Amino acid sequence: MAEGNGFDSIDHAPEAAGDDEHNKLSHNGSSKRMNNNNNSLKLKEEEVSVERVFQHMLVPSWRSQLTVRAFVVSFVLSVLFSFIVMKLNLTTGIIPSLNVSAGLLGFFFVKTWTKFLEKSNMLKQPFTRQENTVIQTCVVASSGIAFSGGFGSYLFGMSERIANLSTDTHDFKDPKLGWIIAFLFVVSFLGLFSVVPLRKIMVIDFKLTYPSGTATAHLINSFHTPQGAKLAKKQVKELGKFFSLSFLWGFFQWFYTATDDCGFQAFPSLGLKAKENRFYFDFSAIYIGVGMICPYIINISVLLGGILSWGLMWPLIENKEGHWYKKDLGQSNLHGIQGYRVFIAIAMILGDGLYNFCKVLTHTFLGLHNQFRNRQRENVLPVAGQETPSPPQVSFDDQRRTQLFLKDQIPAWVAVGGYVAIAAISIATLPHIFHQLKWYYILVIYLIAPTLAFCNAYGCGLTDWSLASTYGKLAIFTIGAWAGSSHGGVLAGLAACGVMMNIVSTASDLMQDFKTGYLTLASPRAMFVSQVIGTSMGCVISPCVFWIFYKAFPDLGKTGSEYPAPYAIVYRNMAILGVEGFSQLPKNCLLLCYILFGSAILINLIKDSLGKRGRFIPLPMAMAIPFYLGPYFAIDMCVGSLILFVWEKINKAKADAFGPAVASGLICGDGIWTLPASILALAGVKPPICMKFLSRATNARVDTFLGN
Amino acid sequence: MAEGNGFDSIDHAPEAAGDDEHNKLSHNGSSKRMNNNNNSLKLKEEEVSVERVFQHMLVPSWRSQLTVRAFVVSFVLSVLFSFIVMKLNLTTGIIPSLNVSAGLLGFFFVKTWTKFLEKSNMLKQPFTRQENTVIQTCVVASSGIAFSGGFGSYLFGMSERIANLSTDTHDFKDPKLGWIIAFLFVVSFLGLFSVVPLRKIMVIDFKLTYPSGTATAHLINSFHTPQGAKLAKKQVKELGKFFSLSFLWGFFQWFYTATDDCGFQAFPSLGLKAKENRFYFDFSAIYIGVGMICPYIINISVLLGGILSWGLMWPLIENKEGHWYKKDLGQSNLHGIQGYRVFIAIAMILGDGLYNFCKVLTHTFLGLHNQFRNRQRENVLPVAGQETPSPPQVSFDDQRRTQLFLKDQIPAWVAVGGYVAIAAISIATLPHIFHQLKWYYILVIYLIAPTLAFCNAYGCGLTDWSLASTYGKLAIFTIGAWAGSSHGGVLAGLAACGVMMNIVSTASDLMQDFKTGYLTLASPRAMFVSQVIGTSMGCVISPCVFWIFYKAFPDLGKTGSEYPAPYAIVYRNMAILGVEGFSQLPKNCLLLCYILFGSAILINLIKDSLGKRGRFIPLPMAMAIPFYLGPYFAIDMCVGSLILFVWEKINKAKADAFGPAVASGLICGDGIWTLPASILALAGVKPPICMKFLSRATNARVDTFLGN
Repeated sequence: MAEGNGFDSIDHAPEAAGDDEHNKLSHNGSSKRMNNNNNSLKLKEEEVSVERVFQHMLVPSWRSQLTVRAFVVSFVLSVLFSFIVMKLNLTTGIIPSLNVSAGLLGFFFVKTWTKFLEKSNMLKQPFTRQENTVIQTCVVASSGIAFSGGFGSYLFGMSERIANLSTDTHDFKDPKLGWIIAFLFVVSFLGLFSVVPLRKIMVIDFKLTYPSGTATAHLINSFHTPQGAKLAKKQVKELGKFFSLSFLWGFFQWFYTATDDCGFQAFPSLGLKAKENRFYFDFSAIYIGVGMICPYIINISVLLGGILSWGLMWPLIENKEGHWYKKDLGQSNLHGIQGYRVFIAIAMILGDGLYNFCKVLTHTFLGLHNQFRNRQRENVLPVAGQETPSPPQVSFDDQRRTQLFLKDQIPAWVAVGGYVAIAAISIATLPHIFHQLKWYYILVIYLIAPTLAFCNAYGCGLTDWSLASTYGKLAIFTIGAWAGSSHGGVLAGLAACGVMMNIVSTASDLMQDFKTGYLTLASPRAMFVSQVIGTSMGCVISPCVFWIFYKAFPDLGKTGSEYPAPYAIVYRNMAILGVEGFSQLPKNCLLLCYILFGSAILINLIKDSLGKRGRFIPLPMAMAIPFYLGPYFAIDMCVGSLILFVWEKINKAKADAFGPAVASGLICGDGIWTLPASILALAGVKPPICMKFLSRATNARVDTFLGN
Repeated sequence: MAEGNGFDSIDHAPEAAGDDEHNKLSHNGSSKRMNNNNNSLKLKEEEVSVERVFQHMLVPSWRSQLTVRAFVVSFVLSVLFSFIVMKLNLTTGIIPSLNVSAGLLGFFFVKTWTKFLEKSNMLKQPFTRQENTVIQTCVVASSGIAFSGGFGSYLFGMSERIANLSTDTHDFKDPKLGWIIAFLFVVSFLGLFSVVPLRKIMVIDFKLTYPSGTATAHLINSFHTPQGAKLAKKQVKELGKFFSLSFLWGFFQWFYTATDDCGFQAFPSLGLKAKENRFYFDFSAIYIGVGMICPYIINISVLLGGILSWGLMWPLIENKEGHWYKKDLGQSNLHGIQGYRVFIAIAMILGDGLYNFCKVLTHTFLGLHNQFRNRQRENVLPVAGQETPSPPQVSFDDQRRTQLFLKDQIPAWVAVGGYVAIAAISIATLPHIFHQLKWYYILVIYLIAPTLAFCNAYGCGLTDWSLASTYGKLAIFTIGAWAGSSHGGVLAGLAACGVMMNIVSTASDLMQDFKTGYLTLASPRAMFVSQVIGTSMGCVISPCVFWIFYKAFPDLGKTGSEYPAPYAIVYRNMAILGVEGFSQLPKNCLLLCYILFGSAILINLIKDSLGKRGRFIPLPMAMAIPFYLGPYFAIDMCVGSLILFVWEKINKAKADAFGPAVASGLICGDGIWTLPASILALAGVKPPICMKFLSRATNARVDTFLGN
């Protein structure tokens, strides 16, 4: 799911994982198809013509692609995925690709519905690939807001709760349903309008790959072949099984979780001493699922980072208590050990972000340069026999896809007019929401944003790497410094981050979807409308879901609680750094930050210079996440990896076909359990039992106390 | 495993379960064989000739059947199974058939060993069915002592610990390694000698079925066919997998069990209120395995009994506290609620025992009567054309088996001489061990014992139902009453029970083994020697294993502890009842006892009168066990049933082939974990963590106390 395109490399890699799976799935599909299509043309592409398989099927008009049932299903799935993404946001911030689950579930719901109608002879319109793409686009757009809305990062970072955890406590803005929805509505559509006119250039002229979008298209195409539908049915069954298991497991766990220190989430599976340093397996189905979807190297990186920080650095720094920082500040004081955790994590994230920013931007400009040079050459020298880099020998698939992609146009005036109108409204509204954010800051952002949006959409097309959060961080530092500490720079920076992230992130999402539409013959107009509807849904659903979490779990954002929302404090402290400089850091922290900032860049350099062998080098971004949180979820994820690894050893074909479905089931089941869990919490129903873990000695004391 | 032939119907039924499985296994085997043997004769039996398959294989002489490797493997397995049986004895007293696991493991060990020798060209003697039978016999005999030694019943019931729990505390004899071994040696061999001369009559002339023995023979035969060996290899793999899982699970659980109230064994999986009434699932792998081996009706009966007692009767009786019995006596005082639990359980066990005693005895005498009538008729009227019940048309299998069975004789003087000699030693020795047991009591027992041993061996052959523990109870009441309360009748009764049980139980075991030997062409002489060696092993291994438990777990026998040894208190109280009558019972307890005694008989009557439909009627014996213990293990067993049920629904063939292996793995793994667990306990290593379950309110108090 494209909403994952957030936390730089971390979110990139899961996407890549998603791709692998889709590629395998669609590869299976196509290899089967190959037997049925011996009349395939001799194509330059390796793949056999997909569109010949679908040749006999009519492509519905763009209006018919936008059915009511599609949006009903999209709405249901949006709510589901918003919950899942929100839970992931607020627990670790690691969001894997949920493409497979969204695809499977969307297909399953509409298929079941149409089957039902077919049996009662009421089916007016069959379920097509195009409609499926519309659903996928809508769900991705909608649940994308749950990520880019910053509920786990900049937006929640503004709140008083997080302010109290950081060094700067006077400047905050608590979340309220009203202003959040208003804010999202005025910033989320700009990205769409800014890149719509470029779709032909990106998709047809530049032939950008958009790996995630392509993978989604393959998935959808494969669903609509007979074999694919059969496999999908089995996958849905598997998904459903693990969904139920994971949901019931969440339900069972709930009973034993009277407080945050109780229950399976506090299980000292590796011993009490290890638990003190946050090394434990917490039986979390969602992160086992995430571990199964993320590539091995991500999980290993997270674990390595955890061992490096909580196993090595923090214990060593804690020995310096009294020297490097004052004694008895406690675990969550930013002037104490917590400061090292947060700022060293930020340093590593920024180091990785900077490296990848430069890398992707270089790719982008090199790619653009090549494109324009080739184009000029083609225009200047259309002489036959002249060697051209991409010969204009067009396959049947490309012909048909291009034809349909160009049929339905979106006029340029709509795009430009839309952008200007929304920007104007936005400039007028936003300073009322955040009085620290002056109208001229916003104007400047909106002048630069289209360029950045284009860069991001192009870079994403080349590398599948969305830099949305990096652009967001850029905005934090620049706007924060501009506003200055006396004028509420922290809040201005965070708000600017939100504006920037939303534009840039939706832009790349939309272009991914255009690519998906191109490959499934969905009309770009339908895609655009679906994206707009999906975004609108997201602007309402996501804040509501967040609101439920915020009201249901009063511990939200507290260190060590069930929902620590790690990125909220990280983002706020980045803003503080930008505004106030390094003066707030405890002793030697800055030095360590420099070292790890440098290491992040160095590790990336080594990784890239090693080429294919570089896949064994850990990712600094992934290593940074447990710095603040602790390695417990890394252990969950590694358990997921281990399960997948063993499964692949036993039966590779089955693991490839059903691994993503099982993982999706685990993720969805546990994720959706948070819905009833938060309803119970809102209703004041508290878990009745505490499963407590005491050392032998403490237990004896407690037994005496209780008079056993 | 024949040692299960103890607690009347409960132990019968698991045997029957074992049979089902073996029958299935061997049925699979034979259906495969059927395709290979189209030259099979037209036999009266349904089954195709087994011996033709093995025709080309030489049967080794009886001396060659008794190999050193066989006894080494037997010794290892005996230790293993003694631990398992002891654990089962001391937790609930339900001992399922361990035939499949013993068979599989014996086959696995020797097969691996011979494979290894074969590869290094050092194999002198191939692994034959006969050798396999020798191992099986030896292991069954040895671990049978772990049951008939009464470590969970009469023998431990003599101890001071149990005496303190009952109303009569002055008369006890604490277990000591020395006298237990001596006692077992002087009583365990009598059974063997008493029925040896009858083997031809029982096996060949009467053609008794001995379902368990036959099943074991089928199992062994199937192992030695090529397909059977292949299946066995897979089964062993499955067994090994679940063995490891179960072992590791036990190991993991250990860490969280600082006291008896801690850890998974005290997990209030159904809530704290249910836990108070002992309704909870305690994640015990061994009882899940037991549940998978026992037939559904047993598990349902146990659960029903638990619901009836702990869900209904005890809470109602507890409401009468202060009226029916004194207040504040606590949970484990026999004058209070505990009295109802123990004596009502005894009433039900005795009711069921009496019914089945009469039933099996009737069968026995009817069977004998028919046998002799037919025999007389055959002798008197050997006229052709005359209708005879069993025509002397002998199949190839029967011919070959009979021929080999009669080849090696055991002279009658060995049997009679052995019996008289051991009886003499026994009469001289036993009064020194138990001074309450006068020499003339023993003499009387030994005069009657051969008859009872024959009855039991014959009844077991007809119905697979060993009445050993019923004969034991008979001895408790008769000898106890004879000695009287002033002369230590309680201890005399319990000791007499031991003498009786050992004779009767080993007698039926031996005859089962002869049947197995008959069907696998093993020499009766080899069987007898193997049984003698196995019994000797058992007389040393079992007391040592018990001794480890006794020393390692000081809570052994305490109500509500990990090892409550429920039958110890039941047996002791039966002895007290026999000696002192009903005067000790709390108010209305006798009335309830009469009602449940009657119900047990009535339910059995209904069950038998319904014929095949009677299989849905619960077994009173099984219902009685949770009366004292609580239904927690019933829940484990029902989970096992459920797993098997679902598995059978999904893939019947696979469940049938691998269910017993999986169950054996679970049982063996958890059972053998008690070995390291008790070594740790003996070494003074205590689990470091307590996983405690507190109600929300208590937890708040504890948190305040601990100063969180």
